[in-house]
Amino acid sequence: MEAKRSGISARLVFAANVRKLRHERGLSQEDLAELSDLHRTYVGSVERGERNVSIDNMERLANALKAKLRELL
Amino acid sequence: MEAKRSGISARLVFAANVRKLRHERGLSQEDLAELSDLHRTYVGSVERGERNVSIDNMERLANALKAKLRELL
Repeated sequence: MEAKRSGISARLVFAANVRKLRHERGLSQEDLAELSDLHRTYVGSVERGERNVSIDNMERLANALKAKLRELL
Repeated sequence: MEAKRSGISARLVFAANVRKLRHERGLSQEDLAELSDLHRTYVGSVERGERNVSIDNMERLANALKAKLRELL
């Protein structure tokens, strides 16, 4: 990852918050994938900060976690 | 646009907030494009909600607007 590049910090904050909230909700990555209609391996890569996730998918994840998107950033 | 699809509302909120804050800062789309190192036509399409913008580019726009990303959502 290009850690110094502008953009990377939001990605990592989002990644950490998705994982944290998923655990709080007692969901597996597979559960979250199903709730958000995304693939399990995709959810895993988002949680590791590997994906330059799009706003549409960010909102799907937030909705599945019953959170507001801004709370994940 | 698929207005009913999950994901579209965050995109439109972000679009409106980028435009609003850009105006408040007295910046043209071209100014914002230069500050965020994105293309002017790309910035325009983001402000029209046409782009499924990625988190990295969202952060670049927020940084250029001297705002926190969550304030734009």
